[in-house]
Amino acid sequence: MSGNSTGIMFRVTTFGSSHGKALGAVIDGCPAGLDLTRMDIQGELDRRRPGASSITTSRGETDQVEILSGIFQGKTDGTPIAAVIYNEDADSSAYEAIKHRPRPGHGDYTWTARYGVYDYRGGGRGSGRATVGHVIGGAVAKKLLKLLDIKVISHVTQIGDIKASPVSHSRIEEYSTKNPVRCADPQAAPKMEEAILEAKAKGDSLGGIVEIIAFQVPAGLGEPVFGKLDAELAQALMGIGSVKGVEVGLGFELARSTASATNDEYYLEKGQIKTTTNTSGGIVGGISNGMPLVMRMAVKPTPSISLPQKTVDLEKKEEVEIKILGRHDPCICPRITTVAESVVAMVLADHLLRTGLINPCHV
Amino acid sequence: MSGNSTGIMFRVTTFGSSHGKALGAVIDGCPAGLDLTRMDIQGELDRRRPGASSITTSRGETDQVEILSGIFQGKTDGTPIAAVIYNEDADSSAYEAIKHRPRPGHGDYTWTARYGVYDYRGGGRGSGRATVGHVIGGAVAKKLLKLLDIKVISHVTQIGDIKASPVSHSRIEEYSTKNPVRCADPQAAPKMEEAILEAKAKGDSLGGIVEIIAFQVPAGLGEPVFGKLDAELAQALMGIGSVKGVEVGLGFELARSTASATNDEYYLEKGQIKTTTNTSGGIVGGISNGMPLVMRMAVKPTPSISLPQKTVDLEKKEEVEIKILGRHDPCICPRITTVAESVVAMVLADHLLRTGLINPCHV
Amino acid sequence: MSGNSTGIMFRVTTFGSSHGKALGAVIDGCPAGLDLTRMDIQGELDRRRPGASSITTSRGETDQVEILSGIFQGKTDGTPIAAVIYNEDADSSAYEAIKHRPRPGHGDYTWTARYGVYDYRGGGRGSGRATVGHVIGGAVAKKLLKLLDIKVISHVTQIGDIKASPVSHSRIEEYSTKNPVRCADPQAAPKMEEAILEAKAKGDSLGGIVEIIAFQVPAGLGEPVFGKLDAELAQALMGIGSVKGVEVGLGFELARSTASATNDEYYLEKGQIKTTTNTSGGIVGGISNGMPLVMRMAVKPTPSISLPQKTVDLEKKEEVEIKILGRHDPCICPRITTVAESVVAMVLADHLLRTGLINPCHV
Amino acid sequence: MSGNSTGIMFRVTTFGSSHGKALGAVIDGCPAGLDLTRMDIQGELDRRRPGASSITTSRGETDQVEILSGIFQGKTDGTPIAAVIYNEDADSSAYEAIKHRPRPGHGDYTWTARYGVYDYRGGGRGSGRATVGHVIGGAVAKKLLKLLDIKVISHVTQIGDIKASPVSHSRIEEYSTKNPVRCADPQAAPKMEEAILEAKAKGDSLGGIVEIIAFQVPAGLGEPVFGKLDAELAQALMGIGSVKGVEVGLGFELARSTASATNDEYYLEKGQIKTTTNTSGGIVGGISNGMPLVMRMAVKPTPSISLPQKTVDLEKKEEVEIKILGRHDPCICPRITTVAESVVAMVLADHLLRTGLINPCHV
Repeated sequence: MSGNSTGIMFRVTTFGSSHGKALGAVIDGCPAGLDLTRMDIQGELDRRRPGASSITTSRGETDQVEILSGIFQGKTDGTPIAAVIYNEDADSSAYEAIKHRPRPGHGDYTWTARYGVYDYRGGGRGSGRATVGHVIGGAVAKKLLKLLDIKVISHVTQIGDIKASPVSHSRIEEYSTKNPVRCADPQAAPKMEEAILEAKAKGDSLGGIVEIIAFQVPAGLGEPVFGKLDAELAQALMGIGSVKGVEVGLGFELARSTASATNDEYYLEKGQIKTTTNTSGGIVGGISNGMPLVMRMAVKPTPSISLPQKTVDLEKKEEVEIKILGRHDPCICPRITTVAESVVAMVLADHLLRTGLINPCHV
Repeated sequence: MSGNSTGIMFRVTTFGSSHGKALGAVIDGCPAGLDLTRMDIQGELDRRRPGASSITTSRGETDQVEILSGIFQGKTDGTPIAAVIYNEDADSSAYEAIKHRPRPGHGDYTWTARYGVYDYRGGGRGSGRATVGHVIGGAVAKKLLKLLDIKVISHVTQIGDIKASPVSHSRIEEYSTKNPVRCADPQAAPKMEEAILEAKAKGDSLGGIVEIIAFQVPAGLGEPVFGKLDAELAQALMGIGSVKGVEVGLGFELARSTASATNDEYYLEKGQIKTTTNTSGGIVGGISNGMPLVMRMAVKPTPSISLPQKTVDLEKKEEVEIKILGRHDPCICPRITTVAESVVAMVLADHLLRTGLINPCHV
Repeated sequence: MSGNSTGIMFRVTTFGSSHGKALGAVIDGCPAGLDLTRMDIQGELDRRRPGASSITTSRGETDQVEILSGIFQGKTDGTPIAAVIYNEDADSSAYEAIKHRPRPGHGDYTWTARYGVYDYRGGGRGSGRATVGHVIGGAVAKKLLKLLDIKVISHVTQIGDIKASPVSHSRIEEYSTKNPVRCADPQAAPKMEEAILEAKAKGDSLGGIVEIIAFQVPAGLGEPVFGKLDAELAQALMGIGSVKGVEVGLGFELARSTASATNDEYYLEKGQIKTTTNTSGGIVGGISNGMPLVMRMAVKPTPSISLPQKTVDLEKKEEVEIKILGRHDPCICPRITTVAESVVAMVLADHLLRTGLINPCHV
Repeated sequence: MSGNSTGIMFRVTTFGSSHGKALGAVIDGCPAGLDLTRMDIQGELDRRRPGASSITTSRGETDQVEILSGIFQGKTDGTPIAAVIYNEDADSSAYEAIKHRPRPGHGDYTWTARYGVYDYRGGGRGSGRATVGHVIGGAVAKKLLKLLDIKVISHVTQIGDIKASPVSHSRIEEYSTKNPVRCADPQAAPKMEEAILEAKAKGDSLGGIVEIIAFQVPAGLGEPVFGKLDAELAQALMGIGSVKGVEVGLGFELARSTASATNDEYYLEKGQIKTTTNTSGGIVGGISNGMPLVMRMAVKPTPSISLPQKTVDLEKKEEVEIKILGRHDPCICPRITTVAESVVAMVLADHLLRTGLINPCHV
């Protein structure tokens, strides 16, 4: 029941729901001495914020974050960093009609099965909006990673049937921030946008794939046998709402390969050990090997659609048909990128502290 | 650094390495009153044991488990269950030649990067042999699951390029246990076996896909937002050596879908809520919905191959070529099925205790 | 570094410092369906609040709590309960003079040793004021305990040299709430008050002893061997600032006893097993036995005194003398009672969930 | 229910019962590169072993420990260290007569209340014998502490009414190891021994007080607010069977003191900050200050006595009288000293890793 925290040394606890009073996070275990301002967090939140373009929800939250504790004279002081965002533009009216009628693909029914009750307004805590807590935690984690020049980026590689062509690692960030779908392939990006708008027009939605890459991750991160780096990254990514698959390196492609074709061989580069290929995605035996971490996650189509769907009225115990009104993203991929980076950053920050590569008391 | 335990209420700690004195597990948190004999564990170990057929390693371990504690008058008594297996057929001679030469695709280099040392004999604790601890934990977990008629099965759905045709859920167990590859498709199974033997003959190895299904899982398991059921299952499966991808339900297929085509709609069956389809694999919003849990994992080709490979001598700091001798599985998929079931069973047992669906003190 | 959380199933994370923007707590793991209003928490905070009498600090905080999340339609909904209090009457001026001069008996020096920095304003997070988080957590825990009619009370049994005479358990609450020192002995209470005022007049402070009793605790709570109930209660109480000793039942008195004189013998009362005496304080073998839990804690004199004290200027590296101004309690015992009850209530709530005596999903 | 582990980074899991097949421990999180032999552990076990003198139980266990894993080429390799001791001299015959009759002062009844069953043979896992696991963990922890010249010692300061006179810290170890009661006061020691033999002759037992001191503990250990060093030490010590009180520094004496008399003032000694007195026992604000840690624990009289005692037959539901046969220590203090040192060493090792003062990956 205490599943709202993650991490061992860098521990983030989040709270809040879509239409409640506020959302936020408490970050415990951030070493003292780290420069941290409100804007470090706000900048990340702005990337995730709704309302930025025609392919995201029209809900108009400004999402201004307030830091309540943990900062002293502009730096962290080793005590918990609490940060909060007040909900402003919540409109629960659209949800009254479906309050006993679980929406297909959403947690309405399963949360009710577990807790006996469900805050149906805007998806409650099951809403994508609850990921502002992830982003707050990720923003602080990214500041820690920056101490070691570690950088986490992400981009959309597929929307529906449209797949992006591979782009060199060094260009992904630049290219993917130039379009609203966050795709690094300039040819595919407008097609993806079009496909999303088309789905939206039909009252439907689309799934996709997001790739996350972490650069400059030192070798040696990961705790076999149950706290392996890839295992904890998989948990972090799969735990984001709408994610139904995670792969590292070549992932599912490896299933149809031979070892002779895909084993990453070692060589020396200026005295440093590198691999000629990176099919492993930077993690072998559950521990990072110094190469870039490469992960991908499968994102299902946003389940909230305005087309009619069949469900059951839990109170009347009868089968019914619903149409979901409210404001929704016709494809969650563009906005989920920031969330994915955030959870990856949190896992890496945690492991850097667990290995002592960052001093856990003060930086 | 304490990554050798998993679970919160049903907590399993494993120990031991491929060529050390012994391997084993301690299970803490199993309620008192559960019938448990040595044979309950031995039966599962026998399924995982090497040497069973021409497509597995020829290492001849009998893997006889001894229970050291936790059983009183034939039942668990609420105290930790420790179980141990002594290594008997360890042959470390083949590993002397490569002790400073990390094998591509293995943890040799990354473990050394982390710990400054690595038990290179047989892969040390990074060996697949370390999963006997998982299987011990899984065997006890399965006994708990049986109290609620929950059953976890698995089968191989792909080896290299050969894909099994879908088989109805009710027949998977029967069919998949009839052949050494553990494939439920009687047509594909012999082809898979042939492909494995062919790879073996070339000194190569093959990857594949394993599907795991859990039946009769009640609705309500999973702790949002970081302890979601799918998140913890993903961690458990990705944490098995050689696994590079995990998906739930339709998984990566959902990336190219629309919600109108894939949302699982609800209906009533004898007063019970069910879904017409199961694209979600039985988990929505991170909580089980009462439908069968369906997961798949991508297994990379066994990295130990006898073909020459390039690596670096860590002592001499020079690039070298190695051939890996020793005894290995040309495809790990058949034997990994039991390990996959084990970790899934452990996660489910843990969540049943965390929700109170099984009394945590005594059954 | 992540020491700001406590509990396994009922998990409380606190944040905030004496002179920062706000203080608060996040409670994760409270089952859904519990009636909970702002006033349930405010009532407990009011008992701990400063400024209530001449023997407490004159800092004038109103300590109005705001619940940010976790409540839906007047009841908990299984999601984290975040609650916050904004600081209003912080006056940091008195602390500038001593910002590099650690106060004897305070954490100023040790926190600096650990974190390299210390929020010296009002004792920062080391301040007694940080216990508002404990009280928020305890208030929710008490609501859970009430479901099983469990009640936690406390009273002051000693201040300096003045010891209270024993009072029957049934009268402690009534008597101890009638005087500002929270002593249940009507004869001793005014003497204690006088002693405190005398110490205050001298610029000094006094220590004391607080006893905590929990009624109606069912037998069976506690997890051997490291999570014993008394062990976790000891951690909880010793973790309160200024507490330097904890004992259960007869405690240190047992050191000079024989088993024949102090073993609690069993008898039957209406079919229920009871003990004739309660020297064990209701816990045997680390597990509750159904008798009242009885604990005492030693509270040191408030270290903040206005008499001159020797210390070291950490910046100038020289020995100096300081006088502590600011506003302080000349004896912390009366106000610490609420904090002690709170942490005991949290431990009990956690164990009730861990044993399944309260359903962890919904009540 | 998973209470058999302790520590976060240095994590020890113990298993086994008094008359079961074996007892042992798994230590997870010990950094690689630490010299460790079987004898490092055996030496500590020998100090705790029964049968050493007329004032301990006559049970004749040799307690030979076997290390099953975690050591490679004479050093730890970062993987879990499992160690086991097989029971040899278990004699369960004396316990048949009382199998439904809980012994006063023992966990028989409370364990039964919790688990519905109890291994009544020799006290099962509630037996003092289960502390061999603590000692195994402590032995490894002490090896880690030695890297920083930290030393943990202990001595008996009171048995029944006989109190030892204070002895200078530098002489405690030498003096206390010269007599079977482990008392550092040469005058008091023989009187204590006599008192124990007298109690034994009467079929009775005695309580006492044990003091534990840790030298060379660096400043900065402890995680406010719930993971304070004193809080975790209190949990560790209170969790040892028969311990009913814990105090740090002056402990309960502080209750009757003033701050002016007991605040530890700071001064400079060769540029290092020290305190003129050590009433705090080396911990202020929950964090170590660099002075010696000083703790005391109250040990109740061994509850197993041969004098007749009243109890209840749980099966027949009637009040009965029992006499406890079997072999027992008439005073547990001398042997418990090693256990106390062990748990203190484990807490310190854990905190050294948590602060990064010892590298968590390799030493």
